[in-house]
Amino acid sequence: MILCDIGNSSLHFLIDGKEYKYFFEDLLPKINETIYYISVSDEGLNKLKMSYSNIIDLEPFIIFSTTYKGMGLDRKVASIGFDNAVIIDAGSAITVDIIEDNLHKGGFIYPGLKASLHSYNLISSKLKQDLNLKVNLDTIPLNTQDAISYAILKSVILPIKEISNNKRIIITGGDAKVLASFFENCEYRPKLIFDNMKGIISANNSFTKRKNSKRDS
Amino acid sequence: MILCDIGNSSLHFLIDGKEYKYFFEDLLPKINETIYYISVSDEGLNKLKMSYSNIIDLEPFIIFSTTYKGMGLDRKVASIGFDNAVIIDAGSAITVDIIEDNLHKGGFIYPGLKASLHSYNLISSKLKQDLNLKVNLDTIPLNTQDAISYAILKSVILPIKEISNNKRIIITGGDAKVLASFFENCEYRPKLIFDNMKGIISANNSFTKRKNSKRDS
Repeated sequence: MILCDIGNSSLHFLIDGKEYKYFFEDLLPKINETIYYISVSDEGLNKLKMSYSNIIDLEPFIIFSTTYKGMGLDRKVASIGFDNAVIIDAGSAITVDIIEDNLHKGGFIYPGLKASLHSYNLISSKLKQDLNLKVNLDTIPLNTQDAISYAILKSVILPIKEISNNKRIIITGGDAKVLASFFENCEYRPKLIFDNMKGIISANNSFTKRKNSKRDS
Repeated sequence: MILCDIGNSSLHFLIDGKEYKYFFEDLLPKINETIYYISVSDEGLNKLKMSYSNIIDLEPFIIFSTTYKGMGLDRKVASIGFDNAVIIDAGSAITVDIIEDNLHKGGFIYPGLKASLHSYNLISSKLKQDLNLKVNLDTIPLNTQDAISYAILKSVILPIKEISNNKRIIITGGDAKVLASFFENCEYRPKLIFDNMKGIISANNSFTKRKNSKRDS
């Protein structure tokens, strides 16, 4: 089974249990098997459709109830199956969703770490810096790189801590590992979206099988 | 007396007590009087030098002691004269400086509100939104615009609240009025940098006069 999670800047494949990331401008690999996908990007989806004929959109099979308007499909898939948790997907954007008593309470969206860093560069070349992940968050910064790194990290960490209220924090996405260390009660789940996509396929397959077996009996 | 504070994207003048902002691509007004200036931008400074001959750089007259490396001159000027305060300059970048017992303890830098909004737009056209300043910060957002507005505002507010430790907060810059309402103990000082530039000029004039009068006596 081959899975593809199409984000804002890349196509993320799971092929034989291994992950492969292709940016929109990259050449995609040859694949003959069925590809099950979810997508939040028209550009990425077009790329998939142009490259492969045997593809199945999982969207119609995703059951996720929320009053949130405009919630990306990847956020829904990431949030499936939790009763009380904060779900973070740290990619080109960092999305945060709050599940309480099996209900999706809403969420918020930061720019991703790379996007944040880039925004400083657009303001002034003097603010072009790499993120210092070892910046001390317990003392006030004393140079430009730390001043920026401190602001970026505190900006992401504090609103999540405020909202989490001691819930477990589940984190996935390209910058998940980097951010996980700043939270207690944090589970790093690099394949969360793929795992939940498999769950959706499996639930739907068994449903189809049940229907078939009923029909057979 | 005419003052000019050259930032990362504009030249900000005080002429006869009135403020005028010119972006780097704008045409500058005719001025014959002496212009006292501070600058954090080579591009802006070049524009000033090309347009006027009678200009005086205030940098040599600014006395501000700190161990912070790379502190912009505007941040130094804004921070002069406080003993215990958090100084925020909310412009194209938002700088935060902490003064404790007359010592500059350091600071940090966010992207400005416009830069933050723009960074979402660069990630995905679906994330292109105006900032909703009336977003409820006490409930979890339920749509994209609120999700972004909440994240931007919380990202700025919480790290400042954490560091301020009940110090008074002084706020200046183009987005100062917008942000001031989110803090208690917050003083909105739109002309803080100009006021402190006047103070520097005045202190230096009296110093020069004292020197001259000593020489005369």
